[in-house]
Amino acid sequence: MAGERLVYLPLGGAGEVGMNMYLYGYGRKGSERFILVDMGVTFPDMDSTPGVDLIFPDIEWIADRADQLDAIFITHAHEDHVGAVGHLYERLKAPIYARKFTAHIARLKMEEHGYDGSEIETIGAMPEQVKAGPFTVGFQPISHSIPESSALIIDTPDGRVVHTGDFKIDETPILGEPFDRQAWGDLGPVKALVCDSTNVFSMHPGRSEVTVGPNIEKIVAEAQGMVVATTFASNIARVKTLADAGIAAGRSIVLLGRAMKRMIEAGVATGVITEFPSTVSPEEARDIPRANLMLLATGSQGERRAASAQLSRGKYQGLSLKEGDLFLFSSKTIPGNETSVGRIVNALSEMGVDVIDDKLADIHVSGHANRPDLQEMHALVKPQFLIPMHGEHRMLREHAKLGEAGGIASVVAPNGTMVSLSGNRPEVVEFVDTGRLYLDGSVQVGALDGVVRDRIRMALNGSVVVGVLIDEEDEPLSDAWVELRGLPETGRSKAPLADVLEEEVGQFLGRANRKTVMDDAKLEEQISRIVRQSSNDEIGKKPEVTVLISRLAV
Amino acid sequence: MAGERLVYLPLGGAGEVGMNMYLYGYGRKGSERFILVDMGVTFPDMDSTPGVDLIFPDIEWIADRADQLDAIFITHAHEDHVGAVGHLYERLKAPIYARKFTAHIARLKMEEHGYDGSEIETIGAMPEQVKAGPFTVGFQPISHSIPESSALIIDTPDGRVVHTGDFKIDETPILGEPFDRQAWGDLGPVKALVCDSTNVFSMHPGRSEVTVGPNIEKIVAEAQGMVVATTFASNIARVKTLADAGIAAGRSIVLLGRAMKRMIEAGVATGVITEFPSTVSPEEARDIPRANLMLLATGSQGERRAASAQLSRGKYQGLSLKEGDLFLFSSKTIPGNETSVGRIVNALSEMGVDVIDDKLADIHVSGHANRPDLQEMHALVKPQFLIPMHGEHRMLREHAKLGEAGGIASVVAPNGTMVSLSGNRPEVVEFVDTGRLYLDGSVQVGALDGVVRDRIRMALNGSVVVGVLIDEEDEPLSDAWVELRGLPETGRSKAPLADVLEEEVGQFLGRANRKTVMDDAKLEEQISRIVRQSSNDEIGKKPEVTVLISRLAV
Repeated sequence: MAGERLVYLPLGGAGEVGMNMYLYGYGRKGSERFILVDMGVTFPDMDSTPGVDLIFPDIEWIADRADQLDAIFITHAHEDHVGAVGHLYERLKAPIYARKFTAHIARLKMEEHGYDGSEIETIGAMPEQVKAGPFTVGFQPISHSIPESSALIIDTPDGRVVHTGDFKIDETPILGEPFDRQAWGDLGPVKALVCDSTNVFSMHPGRSEVTVGPNIEKIVAEAQGMVVATTFASNIARVKTLADAGIAAGRSIVLLGRAMKRMIEAGVATGVITEFPSTVSPEEARDIPRANLMLLATGSQGERRAASAQLSRGKYQGLSLKEGDLFLFSSKTIPGNETSVGRIVNALSEMGVDVIDDKLADIHVSGHANRPDLQEMHALVKPQFLIPMHGEHRMLREHAKLGEAGGIASVVAPNGTMVSLSGNRPEVVEFVDTGRLYLDGSVQVGALDGVVRDRIRMALNGSVVVGVLIDEEDEPLSDAWVELRGLPETGRSKAPLADVLEEEVGQFLGRANRKTVMDDAKLEEQISRIVRQSSNDEIGKKPEVTVLISRLAV
Repeated sequence: MAGERLVYLPLGGAGEVGMNMYLYGYGRKGSERFILVDMGVTFPDMDSTPGVDLIFPDIEWIADRADQLDAIFITHAHEDHVGAVGHLYERLKAPIYARKFTAHIARLKMEEHGYDGSEIETIGAMPEQVKAGPFTVGFQPISHSIPESSALIIDTPDGRVVHTGDFKIDETPILGEPFDRQAWGDLGPVKALVCDSTNVFSMHPGRSEVTVGPNIEKIVAEAQGMVVATTFASNIARVKTLADAGIAAGRSIVLLGRAMKRMIEAGVATGVITEFPSTVSPEEARDIPRANLMLLATGSQGERRAASAQLSRGKYQGLSLKEGDLFLFSSKTIPGNETSVGRIVNALSEMGVDVIDDKLADIHVSGHANRPDLQEMHALVKPQFLIPMHGEHRMLREHAKLGEAGGIASVVAPNGTMVSLSGNRPEVVEFVDTGRLYLDGSVQVGALDGVVRDRIRMALNGSVVVGVLIDEEDEPLSDAWVELRGLPETGRSKAPLADVLEEEVGQFLGRANRKTVMDDAKLEEQISRIVRQSSNDEIGKKPEVTVLISRLAV
């Protein structure tokens, strides 16, 4: 229709791996109706976000248009797709649709925020569909590393959009629906394929989940002492493979870590898993010979508080590792987590525990489509347009090149890029401000608010607090008082740094003119300058300075 | 001789990759004579050492026995082997021996610390030897990723020790001495092989430096726009290979970054490199068509201030990248640096620059011996003992297992483990306190001094400064004053956090008894507790608190 158009707008997940959130809109510019796909989080690190608890996409753009939002769809229950539902729902308040298992996890998250879970509507796979404004949306099963992952088939007045969500091509996924080439080839004319890009640089065809079982089984069968295995708790198929290998070797299975238990429970409750070996509690395990035990532990990414890290530091729930035990990382280390995972591996090595990871044995497969699999997906769906999503910029760009090389009009659209899908080529029509929101303790702060920047500065430069007291006649009273934090006690002169700074500030106050002393801002600025300069002379660092001026005059 | 013994004691580099420093001693316990091998640094990170400039081994143990130290030997000029010479020499003051190129680099470092460089003595390769107390030491050429790398052949009254330094088995290293299997097989009876362990988990035989040339040449020949390549500046062979590929493709070569120029100059000055293509300056390069340019840039590990990172952010010395250009990482990303390297790659992707790294093409080889090469080294040297060094604990342990499997008595000896080599098996005889020393600005602080710990706490928790004023009668005067840093301005109650805290502290002061108010420590402790508690209620974080108490009473 004249003036109406179909647009795609990623708010998170395009230009990064994490915090997935994608908008689709249809209508005239300014009065579109929208649906939102996924509400994910990403995780903080010391480098850029010290002290932050979680990171969300900044949803201001759509929150300002919340009355234009008809529905929210969650493709699967990974944190980078569902983790933000409870935190951000209040500002959007549209109905949330998901399949059974995903809905179960999403409801738990909503309940943590005081909702009753009725905000989440459970919907079955295609052919079931949801009508949301001008959109008709169905969940198309697709294989991934968590049960019930789904692509979205989004029918619009301007054609069909296929939003893959996260996927791999796996016809033997152990749990959940096998990839159905027939169904994917039968989607009919597809205007746009919005497609996972994570593994575009992995050149070989991906391997099926079923391939890791025999390798794990062999390793566990040959192990002498206790065996501990870690993997992503949400990869229930893998957890089951590990448990089955333990049982086959005559071992009792212990689940360690909340996420591990919660995911199995969710799987059982929603029927995505029907048989899981019976487990024993950590208490019961203490009475079982270690050669007959297999622990399945959370924390494959080296998370400090998870079961794996705690085991590497000593006891966890009364269980501990010792020489001759075996530890399996049935997982890959996500880039950025190498150091924390390495810390665990080396601590285990110090205990005499053997470690086998995905580099030493084929005990892990990725949940994402590799380059040849992406090409197969393109060939199956035969879309008019390709929009790479779920990836760093280099991955989106490479994936778009791959599409173009295959004759599909492709566009690199990082977060904030609004692309019109209504014409004969995808067309960038607008750039929208996007960004990040931090959950910091219990407060949401903007990434650009300066809060975290100030913390980074204190971490790099240390902190000096200076107290000065000004009397009723605007004369400095007594000496300045300096407190250091995160700075060496002495420097070049060998005198205590605090004394040196107090002396320097005292001298300045002695010679400062009345106008300066009367002016808080000026006084603060000059004292800061002196402290930074003197510190630099003494210790080669310019600290962050806080000046507290107390005035007796009222 | 009765009571005399030969000992090995790593102070750094055993149980980590970095800051190599190894002691050998001979004599009666307590009156040994020592030699020190290498004085390396390791690099800080935000996770554990924010704001730190460099990390050294804590040398207290040997500094306390500096009069027993006869000599220092530097195997090669990598920072993790030579980086600490200038910083720590003052506490050791033994003569330093190195071969020509390494000595050149070491002298530059000494000069930066006000020495004249005469502390470094240049010595030739074997058969030249240095007598140092009971030790006779020769430099045995060995292939690695820097010119003139050397193993040390250490003859002692209790037999010959071979300290490999860093090495690979490379008979065609482009620059410097090829690995000489004959010479290595002819070392005669060797008591102990102290051996590089870095790549013990790499299962395939290592590749020669010569193998990367043709691949690089092909890529550069096919490139259309400007080509930028980064690698470790000290890998002069690689820099030459890259430059040669540029020249072969009709491109002018530009060296970007201080380290790049310094290494080439050192190579030319010491004769380890005789032919290096002529280069043009960045100024001259601006007048050359970009298709005829090849830039060789520092910063392959993503270092923020190096040339590569600066190019990824915009201009560097008047040169900038644009769509159609090509960027080569002829390097591997050291674990822990993935995020910073990824940042550069994605920034380049946003510019439309293609990036090729060691995963996409064979344009890098490691400088360390892989597992089969280590086995070959064991077989060539046929030592009685194997002591793995230069590696994380898991690498040392794996390497020791490899030795034992080959019938060599092997011992895992992480930093601080003193091993006697005098008997029929390596025997751990003592554990010595070791640790880390931080260069923080211009000051050396101990890793356990708490300075960095306090900075990390501020980064995680933010900081609150509270000023209170107590009058001559020990009564609180006026309200408390609160300043926040690195904390959100408002929390649960929507009132400014600083106001809430001032109010809480004010109320406390109003009800506090005289005894508390008179006692600085008690007052500080209670105010801190209140601030942490109230902050937790408001923002879900317990900040670091500094309390400044000003008393008018004298």
